[in-house]
Amino acid sequence: MADSPNCDLKSLSPLQLFERVTEQGEKVRALKAGKAPKDEIDAAVRMLLSLKLSYKTTTGQDYQAGLPPKDLLLINNGTTKEEDEDLVDPWNVQTSNAKGVDYDKLIVRFGSSKIDTDLINRIERATGQKPHHFLRRGIFFSHRDMDQVLDAYENKKSFYLYTGRGPSSQAMHVGHLIPFMFTKWLQEVFDVPLVIQLTDDEKYLWKDMTVEKAYEYAKENAKDIIACGFDINKTFIFSDLDYLGASPGFYKNIVKVQKHVTFNQVKGIFGFTDSDCIGKISFPAIQAAPSFSSSFPQIFNGKENIQCLIPCAIDQDPYFRMTRDVAPRIGQPKPALLHSVFFPALQGAQTKMSASDPNSSIFLTDTPKQIKTKINKHAFSGGRDTIEEHRKYGGNCDVDVSFMYLTFFLEDDDRLEQLKQAYTSGELLTGELKKVLIETMQPLVAAHQERRKQVTDEIVKQFMTPRKLAFEF
Amino acid sequence: MADSPNCDLKSLSPLQLFERVTEQGEKVRALKAGKAPKDEIDAAVRMLLSLKLSYKTTTGQDYQAGLPPKDLLLINNGTTKEEDEDLVDPWNVQTSNAKGVDYDKLIVRFGSSKIDTDLINRIERATGQKPHHFLRRGIFFSHRDMDQVLDAYENKKSFYLYTGRGPSSQAMHVGHLIPFMFTKWLQEVFDVPLVIQLTDDEKYLWKDMTVEKAYEYAKENAKDIIACGFDINKTFIFSDLDYLGASPGFYKNIVKVQKHVTFNQVKGIFGFTDSDCIGKISFPAIQAAPSFSSSFPQIFNGKENIQCLIPCAIDQDPYFRMTRDVAPRIGQPKPALLHSVFFPALQGAQTKMSASDPNSSIFLTDTPKQIKTKINKHAFSGGRDTIEEHRKYGGNCDVDVSFMYLTFFLEDDDRLEQLKQAYTSGELLTGELKKVLIETMQPLVAAHQERRKQVTDEIVKQFMTPRKLAFEF
Repeated sequence: MADSPNCDLKSLSPLQLFERVTEQGEKVRALKAGKAPKDEIDAAVRMLLSLKLSYKTTTGQDYQAGLPPKDLLLINNGTTKEEDEDLVDPWNVQTSNAKGVDYDKLIVRFGSSKIDTDLINRIERATGQKPHHFLRRGIFFSHRDMDQVLDAYENKKSFYLYTGRGPSSQAMHVGHLIPFMFTKWLQEVFDVPLVIQLTDDEKYLWKDMTVEKAYEYAKENAKDIIACGFDINKTFIFSDLDYLGASPGFYKNIVKVQKHVTFNQVKGIFGFTDSDCIGKISFPAIQAAPSFSSSFPQIFNGKENIQCLIPCAIDQDPYFRMTRDVAPRIGQPKPALLHSVFFPALQGAQTKMSASDPNSSIFLTDTPKQIKTKINKHAFSGGRDTIEEHRKYGGNCDVDVSFMYLTFFLEDDDRLEQLKQAYTSGELLTGELKKVLIETMQPLVAAHQERRKQVTDEIVKQFMTPRKLAFEF
Repeated sequence: MADSPNCDLKSLSPLQLFERVTEQGEKVRALKAGKAPKDEIDAAVRMLLSLKLSYKTTTGQDYQAGLPPKDLLLINNGTTKEEDEDLVDPWNVQTSNAKGVDYDKLIVRFGSSKIDTDLINRIERATGQKPHHFLRRGIFFSHRDMDQVLDAYENKKSFYLYTGRGPSSQAMHVGHLIPFMFTKWLQEVFDVPLVIQLTDDEKYLWKDMTVEKAYEYAKENAKDIIACGFDINKTFIFSDLDYLGASPGFYKNIVKVQKHVTFNQVKGIFGFTDSDCIGKISFPAIQAAPSFSSSFPQIFNGKENIQCLIPCAIDQDPYFRMTRDVAPRIGQPKPALLHSVFFPALQGAQTKMSASDPNSSIFLTDTPKQIKTKINKHAFSGGRDTIEEHRKYGGNCDVDVSFMYLTFFLEDDDRLEQLKQAYTSGELLTGELKKVLIETMQPLVAAHQERRKQVTDEIVKQFMTPRKLAFEF
């Protein structure tokens, strides 16, 4: 940013241009306030106008102070959200539609790419494995640069996976497992190493919680994550509070990201305000840094610039849009992304589930009886009001939460299709559909609990110890 | 901050009250914008007025949006600086007075205490040593809570020292040695451990410099610091870029401070703007954290809540006012401080010296010839224009830089007093005074160079290795 604003404006990103205009605007104001010579002010104003023109040419938008370019803007601050748009950011997911968030619109708004049949077929060819049902059913629906990851992979250039979780409580629900189940599959079929970030520092900053409590939750959550079946030789799980003080590379990458992101930018992306603590304001850099393999010198044996692929729910995308904007400026490759839809609450797809409401989902600690009661009592039904009407008009799978849950957890495609047709035609009643879900979830949760029991403190310690992972690049 | 605004307003600090008013103001605006029910808005407005009243009662000032309470305000953002006031913050020191900054005014403005004869006598009694000439001559002129440190020390409760340096270049000048010379004396006479922070991350964030370069400067500067004669068994020197990734306690304290300081606060204290990078915005927490002994579990053998005493130039005080405001809220003792005056540039006391102008001071790498030339050519003289006038009216020691330098480096009180009288009376000419300074600085710098030569990379490594220091608490 030290070069003169005249040169290479075309090579600047919209965000960099935005910053230039903002800086120049401040310079003009300072010159005027300081009663600088007229020709000096005039020159600065001319530069400002020229920068604004470049901004408009590049972005197609007029420059507006305090409003970074739209492709980096989340619609979480009200000012840019249109009336009928869904609200999606790392802390809120809201829609007025019972079918849930409109994901096709989100792809356009976020500027990501749809995971289409071609890409799914390519993944099948590259791995020689049948694509995961999360891919086949559009649960992972959007991506950034996955085609480039596959290009490289086909040329024997591998990558590593990075995903994470904010340990806000001890209790995890089945929805929390989605990214981990998918990541486990990716690890297996691509045979790649994986790092999992537990953002206990984030939870400490955002919640009324001590550092000690946040770290305790991180370790408890690690057990549920490990129970998903990750390969201990290829997986490193870390708590920020722990690993930041144990890695020679992590903080260096954090501070590099922090140098290249301004408060204006995080204000635009995350909706922070002047009343937010400086910890929140600088946190996005901490979620960004694991996208760079040099944050893990022990893990990757000092190997830098390994391509990173991040499977995550779409609400985490703002962090990584920011990361991708910064990456080339600090000499790092941009991470690629695979985005999932949100897991619906039992009460309906209008909101994301909340760990603080025990009835909003099925928890990993629920007994078979609790699972049965919750589904029967709370799972929003797309069925008709009376049996007669249901038989006549059929149920609506698009809004039926039991059916939605089955798309996540029932692996058998034929069975799912049969259920859909039977429910839609009215042949299958709501109670019968719920029974299928209960019979699917009870053994699934019980098996998870059984695996979790096997995860000792010693195993957690092994997963969380920085050490060289097994990999070939 | 989760409790209701009604209770315990009296126990809040002015800054906390300021935050409450700001938050409540935002709440009222949000309610109005969201067209909330009238009674809800009315209740919020009543609460706002009551908070503003509490603020005025506590601070004696009206609440002004964006302007934190005065006792925390630095006068570096123009808005609160009066016409004839000096500009003093961590990045700027400016005065229009040839005698230098008005330190008595600064004590009032910063709300610190003067180091008076009583305190100096107490230090002499507590240590059984003649006070350092920096104390006797008012070079360390201001303090916070030094009396409490002495109370505890007299009751066999010891403390540790914390000072630091921003390694902005390889070249250090004699002015940079002032805090270290004094800290070495404190370490000796009180027999206490010492931690020295090299803020290479800060320099990376503020300057056009790579992470690698900043770290290299840190290690080079460490050599000059070690050459001051610190006890290797009682001194830990650390680079932030290095130690943050090597300490289980440092980051935890940083994130605690970051949770308790808002952007509004750092804006008020340091003058940050929305265009500043998030690294700068969160950096003050990194300079704050070494004030807490739990940042150094290896050094203090896990012992927490050890009192900290910070000798530093007065321009660093804003960091530690912030630290002292946060400390009780995170269960830590407030650090005590000893403040020094600024070291004048050769050209005059109006500005602080700059490492980027080789003629602005005597550098630790200067040859005897360079020292002679610099002093003869550049040292601002308080002498008269002609020998005749000088003999008749005498020189002015208050603005004469050679004399100022001698107050720093000529330890012999009687000799200094003789020189002062002879120069003031006109008996001693400017050239003769300069000769005394040259003869003082040449051996001093040569001796430093000699000691620095002895500081091998191995010795630097030892000083910079986290390890238990020798101490008794």
